[in-house]
Amino acid sequence: MRARHLVVLPVLLLGGACTPAGDSTSDSATETDAVTPMEAASPLMQRAQTLFEIVPVEPPQLADNPVTPVKVELGKKLYFEPRLSQSWLISCNTCHNLGLGGVDLMETSIGHGWQAGPRNAPTVLNSVYNLAQFWDGRAADLMEQAQGPVQAAVEMSSTPERTVETLRSIPDYVSMFGEAFPDADPVTFQNMARAIEAFEATLVTPNSPFDLYLGGDGSALTDDEKTGLALFMDSGCTACHGGILLGGSSYQRFGTVRNPGVELLPPEDRGRFNVTGNPNDEFAFKVPVLRNVELTAPYFHTGKVWDLKEAVGVMGEAQLGKEFTEVERAQITAFLGSLTGVQPEVEYPVLPVHTADTPQPDPWVGLGARPH
Amino acid sequence: MRARHLVVLPVLLLGGACTPAGDSTSDSATETDAVTPMEAASPLMQRAQTLFEIVPVEPPQLADNPVTPVKVELGKKLYFEPRLSQSWLISCNTCHNLGLGGVDLMETSIGHGWQAGPRNAPTVLNSVYNLAQFWDGRAADLMEQAQGPVQAAVEMSSTPERTVETLRSIPDYVSMFGEAFPDADPVTFQNMARAIEAFEATLVTPNSPFDLYLGGDGSALTDDEKTGLALFMDSGCTACHGGILLGGSSYQRFGTVRNPGVELLPPEDRGRFNVTGNPNDEFAFKVPVLRNVELTAPYFHTGKVWDLKEAVGVMGEAQLGKEFTEVERAQITAFLGSLTGVQPEVEYPVLPVHTADTPQPDPWVGLGARPH
Repeated sequence: MRARHLVVLPVLLLGGACTPAGDSTSDSATETDAVTPMEAASPLMQRAQTLFEIVPVEPPQLADNPVTPVKVELGKKLYFEPRLSQSWLISCNTCHNLGLGGVDLMETSIGHGWQAGPRNAPTVLNSVYNLAQFWDGRAADLMEQAQGPVQAAVEMSSTPERTVETLRSIPDYVSMFGEAFPDADPVTFQNMARAIEAFEATLVTPNSPFDLYLGGDGSALTDDEKTGLALFMDSGCTACHGGILLGGSSYQRFGTVRNPGVELLPPEDRGRFNVTGNPNDEFAFKVPVLRNVELTAPYFHTGKVWDLKEAVGVMGEAQLGKEFTEVERAQITAFLGSLTGVQPEVEYPVLPVHTADTPQPDPWVGLGARPH
Repeated sequence: MRARHLVVLPVLLLGGACTPAGDSTSDSATETDAVTPMEAASPLMQRAQTLFEIVPVEPPQLADNPVTPVKVELGKKLYFEPRLSQSWLISCNTCHNLGLGGVDLMETSIGHGWQAGPRNAPTVLNSVYNLAQFWDGRAADLMEQAQGPVQAAVEMSSTPERTVETLRSIPDYVSMFGEAFPDADPVTFQNMARAIEAFEATLVTPNSPFDLYLGGDGSALTDDEKTGLALFMDSGCTACHGGILLGGSSYQRFGTVRNPGVELLPPEDRGRFNVTGNPNDEFAFKVPVLRNVELTAPYFHTGKVWDLKEAVGVMGEAQLGKEFTEVERAQITAFLGSLTGVQPEVEYPVLPVHTADTPQPDPWVGLGARPH
């Protein structure tokens, strides 16, 4: 959909190299986009190649959780399975909607009983590459993360016991778990989470314009996007927003230079401090991923900023002490738009039939009187 | 998944016909299942062929709404589009979940603000063949129906104006509407409904075991299912539950013989009478479709019965004045299980990005104070 103009850059022949240095990331990009001799790596491209990594086309393998097709298929069903919630209304996909950049476009998510949760839902896309999960990193990986919302009173409001009872009551799930987990006891809460993790690991978005650029295609970015990229690197954004995800690899205090104010940083949410108890972690949060960021408004852990340009301005002031001009914000935002990759193709799963043994939905549990 | 035993029936050669009479429905079945010479139409099969029709493999065309691929693709996006709701949380698929037989498995649907609606959600699957839409038939067709939930305060709680403003603010939707509707003014509330109708018309479930049986494959039903089919026809169920859908073709008073009681037939919901004002229509409802009925619990317009065998018992008493035995209920239920067809394959749509002009979500509108 994005209009791209062929930009002819001054060709700087560096040691005769007409393609980027043979780094480990260039192979995946050349599958989809051949480097032409005219588009030798410019200094901008070379610098970017040292700070960022291409999103691999193939999803990664997981430590201690071999990704197999049957496990991914099971995990997909579970990801879309509202019967994992007490109400039978909420699934992983409710708040991490694969049609909407892996988020729900809410300030903070709305769950069981229409209750609002405490923080904005981070995207599931490429989340396998995060150093840990949740804004405060309290889950080491996606397998641990997947167990949280099922039990959270304001999200799916169920319990591990009820979840397992539900899954065991559905013969098709029992046989799928048996295939995916050749254990003595395949249908467990942990294996449910392992299957969801295996599916989520496949939710990567390769081949964004920026990935093509990193792979050596100088025409993959527009002039504005390149100016934005240069500004992004020159201003110090890459201190936190580098690597594969342009984020997701460290915890940083929100407001290192200037406090962004109580609306964006309410004093009652002390971030990673709640996990570690370390005063240095007060108001620190996992640095958000910038991959697909144009799809995942509203921004910050409070979800209070809808406009990406405005969010760029907030970051400049709060983290870098810089007042970006209107033009600079627009250029950085243009660059951020180049981070939207090819979204995963997912066939909507047909879910297995429950039985008389399946615990029935109770949409009103924990809400006191039926609210409406 | 269903275990099927080859049943050798007494072969009754009727006038030398080894295949069903050349009726208009047999062609679609023979595409997937050839009739072998041994499986000549039994009297049971012949009788069934006069009372029921095979679900065609190809979706039907619609009067005044040509079904085109681009319109279907647009309609699919709109079907899964939560931004048609005021909250950005509820889409058509929330209550008519294509992974769950086209329903939400709720007694009555839960919508905006976790409010419960007045009636059980009917399945969207094969709904194009209904004589009209909703339990009381108040919408003539799916195009009219699709306009209802978007506006209903307890469902999506939006307005036609807001919906059109939303769609017009999203450039990808504007271009898709332009392609789907080569009108002077393509992005309208009616065209939204037309696109959804076009997609919904594709949601048919052909090739159920019963369809294969109707197509001439005597081994497609088990003995129990055949006994159930015979009972179903002998008991008079087919007076209302015949045709393609085994229902959906007439309005009938619930409790023609015996009132099923206030839980199943609360006096405040007078059914079709609310539409026509005709006293003969008091407590009449559109006869529910039995296609895929094993997937669509709980049953009746109140959704008060979860067990299909129990629902069969209720129908026998209320509509026919018959007390089916436990064995008979099980046999009829076995037959009903043969009505589950091949579920539609749907690739989950990637939805277009909204813009600064898109009206933002308001999950709390109409709920008074923010409830939680």
